[in-house]
Amino acid sequence: MTPSPLPHGLWGVLATPFHGPRLEVDIESLQREVDLYLGVPADGLVVLGVFGEGVALDSVEQAAVVSEVAKRAPGTPLVVGVSARTTAVAIEQARTAVAAAGPDLAGVMVQANTADPAVLTRHLTAVHEATGAGVVLQDYPEASGVRITAEQVLEVVTDCPFVVAVKSEAPPTSVAIGRLTARSDVPVFGGLGGVGLLDELAAGAAGAMTGFSHPEGLRAALDAWTRGGYDTARDAFAPWLPLVNFEAQPGIGLSLRKTILRERGVFSEAAVRPPSRTAPQEILGLMPDHLTAARGILASTHPHDERS
Amino acid sequence: MTPSPLPHGLWGVLATPFHGPRLEVDIESLQREVDLYLGVPADGLVVLGVFGEGVALDSVEQAAVVSEVAKRAPGTPLVVGVSARTTAVAIEQARTAVAAAGPDLAGVMVQANTADPAVLTRHLTAVHEATGAGVVLQDYPEASGVRITAEQVLEVVTDCPFVVAVKSEAPPTSVAIGRLTARSDVPVFGGLGGVGLLDELAAGAAGAMTGFSHPEGLRAALDAWTRGGYDTARDAFAPWLPLVNFEAQPGIGLSLRKTILRERGVFSEAAVRPPSRTAPQEILGLMPDHLTAARGILASTHPHDERS
Amino acid sequence: MTPSPLPHGLWGVLATPFHGPRLEVDIESLQREVDLYLGVPADGLVVLGVFGEGVALDSVEQAAVVSEVAKRAPGTPLVVGVSARTTAVAIEQARTAVAAAGPDLAGVMVQANTADPAVLTRHLTAVHEATGAGVVLQDYPEASGVRITAEQVLEVVTDCPFVVAVKSEAPPTSVAIGRLTARSDVPVFGGLGGVGLLDELAAGAAGAMTGFSHPEGLRAALDAWTRGGYDTARDAFAPWLPLVNFEAQPGIGLSLRKTILRERGVFSEAAVRPPSRTAPQEILGLMPDHLTAARGILASTHPHDERS
Amino acid sequence: MTPSPLPHGLWGVLATPFHGPRLEVDIESLQREVDLYLGVPADGLVVLGVFGEGVALDSVEQAAVVSEVAKRAPGTPLVVGVSARTTAVAIEQARTAVAAAGPDLAGVMVQANTADPAVLTRHLTAVHEATGAGVVLQDYPEASGVRITAEQVLEVVTDCPFVVAVKSEAPPTSVAIGRLTARSDVPVFGGLGGVGLLDELAAGAAGAMTGFSHPEGLRAALDAWTRGGYDTARDAFAPWLPLVNFEAQPGIGLSLRKTILRERGVFSEAAVRPPSRTAPQEILGLMPDHLTAARGILASTHPHDERS
Repeated sequence: MTPSPLPHGLWGVLATPFHGPRLEVDIESLQREVDLYLGVPADGLVVLGVFGEGVALDSVEQAAVVSEVAKRAPGTPLVVGVSARTTAVAIEQARTAVAAAGPDLAGVMVQANTADPAVLTRHLTAVHEATGAGVVLQDYPEASGVRITAEQVLEVVTDCPFVVAVKSEAPPTSVAIGRLTARSDVPVFGGLGGVGLLDELAAGAAGAMTGFSHPEGLRAALDAWTRGGYDTARDAFAPWLPLVNFEAQPGIGLSLRKTILRERGVFSEAAVRPPSRTAPQEILGLMPDHLTAARGILASTHPHDERS
Repeated sequence: MTPSPLPHGLWGVLATPFHGPRLEVDIESLQREVDLYLGVPADGLVVLGVFGEGVALDSVEQAAVVSEVAKRAPGTPLVVGVSARTTAVAIEQARTAVAAAGPDLAGVMVQANTADPAVLTRHLTAVHEATGAGVVLQDYPEASGVRITAEQVLEVVTDCPFVVAVKSEAPPTSVAIGRLTARSDVPVFGGLGGVGLLDELAAGAAGAMTGFSHPEGLRAALDAWTRGGYDTARDAFAPWLPLVNFEAQPGIGLSLRKTILRERGVFSEAAVRPPSRTAPQEILGLMPDHLTAARGILASTHPHDERS
Repeated sequence: MTPSPLPHGLWGVLATPFHGPRLEVDIESLQREVDLYLGVPADGLVVLGVFGEGVALDSVEQAAVVSEVAKRAPGTPLVVGVSARTTAVAIEQARTAVAAAGPDLAGVMVQANTADPAVLTRHLTAVHEATGAGVVLQDYPEASGVRITAEQVLEVVTDCPFVVAVKSEAPPTSVAIGRLTARSDVPVFGGLGGVGLLDELAAGAAGAMTGFSHPEGLRAALDAWTRGGYDTARDAFAPWLPLVNFEAQPGIGLSLRKTILRERGVFSEAAVRPPSRTAPQEILGLMPDHLTAARGILASTHPHDERS
Repeated sequence: MTPSPLPHGLWGVLATPFHGPRLEVDIESLQREVDLYLGVPADGLVVLGVFGEGVALDSVEQAAVVSEVAKRAPGTPLVVGVSARTTAVAIEQARTAVAAAGPDLAGVMVQANTADPAVLTRHLTAVHEATGAGVVLQDYPEASGVRITAEQVLEVVTDCPFVVAVKSEAPPTSVAIGRLTARSDVPVFGGLGGVGLLDELAAGAAGAMTGFSHPEGLRAALDAWTRGGYDTARDAFAPWLPLVNFEAQPGIGLSLRKTILRERGVFSEAAVRPPSRTAPQEILGLMPDHLTAARGILASTHPHDERS
């Protein structure tokens, strides 16, 4: 049975919260994060992605995080990230994901680990055949070190009917998304924290698949896009861009995002697991302005809501 | 005589327009670009920077561009970019700059070509001593391939009283700018097309030294910052961020910016000199939405102006 | 109990042989490879290193390879590579290694995953405390993406008495090895296929920890070094350098090495697991000359031996 | 008139000697270096290459070095390196080269500055048309940052009849050289200090175009290759490989080579121009062993010669 393409819309990439001196997975914070996304609401959730620090969780923790999210968000489709870039280990991780996710699994997300379409096709096929899962193909050279063209991705997608989506994170993303969506029906999602979301939508993206401390902003952009196209989406999303750009800073973006989630009362702690970097003290001084601004936007767009 | 630190504010990095099948320097377009910046107004101009394609101009063209800008903008302080990363060639280029710029030269911009403070100090000192010019130290690893810490930059700045400014373009820039401005009085400017301008200002930046197809947006942000601090600057700049992020796309950003300058009637052609990349056709389809939006913002903020 | 420093000499890094259309681990070839190294003899063996494709084996395969080697080479000290660069996963892999290696485990090899000595010390300490194993610290920026100075490595080694060796693979290696051995008693091994072995020994290296299709050459160099110093080692090793350099070619070196091991009758197949690259056909035409030469050297130095 | 292909054989890449506190070009040392190569003899000379620090010489110095070499080696064909990667500046440098080299100019060496064959063809064509000079296309990603396939190089070579040679320095070089020479008659030279020379010859290389402190070793390898093929070349070159590998160390190789040339009495000083790195003191301790060995090889192969 061929897996179904992912539904369009907002796919929230969950950060994995840690707590205590041993940086253990913080299940309660994770639950609050899921609740935040359900309230937005997100159309789907992504766990163990690059910004979910999937690569920093051992196999027991991977299973625990996936199953907790699946339990907390029954009925919400899940994509589970596979951090391995070799076939045998990717299969092992994908099996963990399938077992833990249960019936809501919509796909496993696998990184392009080579620019050779034939080799990549064999890799994805092996993961799919071993698990039955749909595959989200992630093109994220910053994490993978692999540069693959839109034409090569297209060749892979054509040969792999079980690919349920592409996550396109090789800037300039709107070029790649435009080329992919012009010649394929597979849904293509933008990521990268939403830095290029407006252009990605204009280029044909099926939505946003990314993390953000305020997913309400991504939701607002997507809803506005559906409602009124580019101009409407632009008006809805521009106020969020200062914070989007702040969180998109290389190296420290994840730490900043977790800090804001802590300030919002979602996470108990902002810790990242090394070698992910902790944002330096200096930059935290910029946080209050961002938080005040975000509260202002939320208040104006969700007047009856008490979220901060 | 120790050169004076650069005045704070908006330093417009000029793109160099080319025309015709041989991609010759287009002096008339350059004049219109200078006029655009003077009208904004910019507090200073930067010629032959990285986004001015200084590295693609031969010595005659370098002199021609610098002297044309100096002639068109008398009284406006000029910074001239030096693309060479070795001392003898940097001196040669700096001499060309000094001769062509005349009395308005405020400094030559030299890239950090090593992370070793002693070696970098000797390099900058040699350029200064050969020309008498003040030096803007540019930290832009994307162009230079050199990663230097804020502490190392501080060491250089302390040993080089002729450094009149630092251009800080190593993300996360607000961290570096915060560290530099906490321990030095040298003005530090943000660049990178303005992607992080708000945070850079909050971290202590002296202004923006960057190119943008609509420098009016940078001006509005800086004026608002002076007037009302972060919140005011944020309100003024957020509407411009979709376009800022569009132009900041790696590889094709310069081509996009030149295309928009052509659409604004400033440039006759949008050509870049190879190996700079020309933006692919697909992405030009996104241009009209950006232009319409930009016109809308300008109309609302400059109601009596007829610029587009 | 503090683990003992590794004995000096030749540590053979085993390639992992695969066979069949599914590229399964080929235990019989692995046994022959162990026998080759025991015959040389190697002073110790390294399994699951970078060139052992440890990153391409799932946890069951990792355990199977380690236990097979331990069984085949009783009494020979083993180092087991840990491919993960995050703490929790490194601990999980190290536990697998400890359980499978048994009493001959001399250490687990962990890559420098950050240049921050405090963070790296915590990482190594966590792996050691969770397993009791000694740690070989590998500095291999080509694989890890991390650049760490000799001074930073020294700081870590000083704070981690359980570090039993350093594998120094950041060229120029003889500089790093000289700095480390001048200020620490921890044995430091060269790697990189032996390309710089002579200089590394002259700089104070404790031996070679690397793979090579003809470990007899590495053994000859080390024995000659012990016997007569640089000149003697040079005479012994120079004839092997054409092959050493051939196998050190980036991207395809492992495939070449496995092909030669197949030609020697050690491996049944030369396959690598993607995304490791298979050497292109063209280059295989150069193989016969190398094999003939190697046979010639072996014949002249091991006249009564029938190995090819 | 179409320029002639380069003659096969040994093309010596000259290092540029500097002296004094201001690191001025040292003409007398340069003359001795030319004499060394003429005595070897080299079939041609390359000035202002990457290891000639062409990028660190201003235009006056470029002309001075080229004309000095031309004067000292009348009748020896010259290739002059062009460090610029943009067309206008490359033309400016090529004109300097043509004017200074005189009738012995065999070509200007231009780096591949893009992987796009059409763009690269236009670049090379512009340089050729502006100067009439033949072009040596250098594929050296370590210096250029550009990765181009053998197929793309072939396309360029086919479209540019004025390309008189390719310098192939993208490892694995023997693969690229094999592909190029199988489908084109343009001579292809190996470089990279000779690290892969034997394999490059076996793959079809027209010779070596590289620097080495002891070009006698390269000469010996090439003569042996002509005389007896791979085995003979191997016997001649293997003794030199420890020194070849020593000088090929990244970052400090040029400094090491200049130090050895100083020890040989060729250069007065070993200085490099920053940001080229000076080899650290520690490693100089390895120098005497290399020098002793080199003298020994020279004595055994050039018994009546007094060169050291």
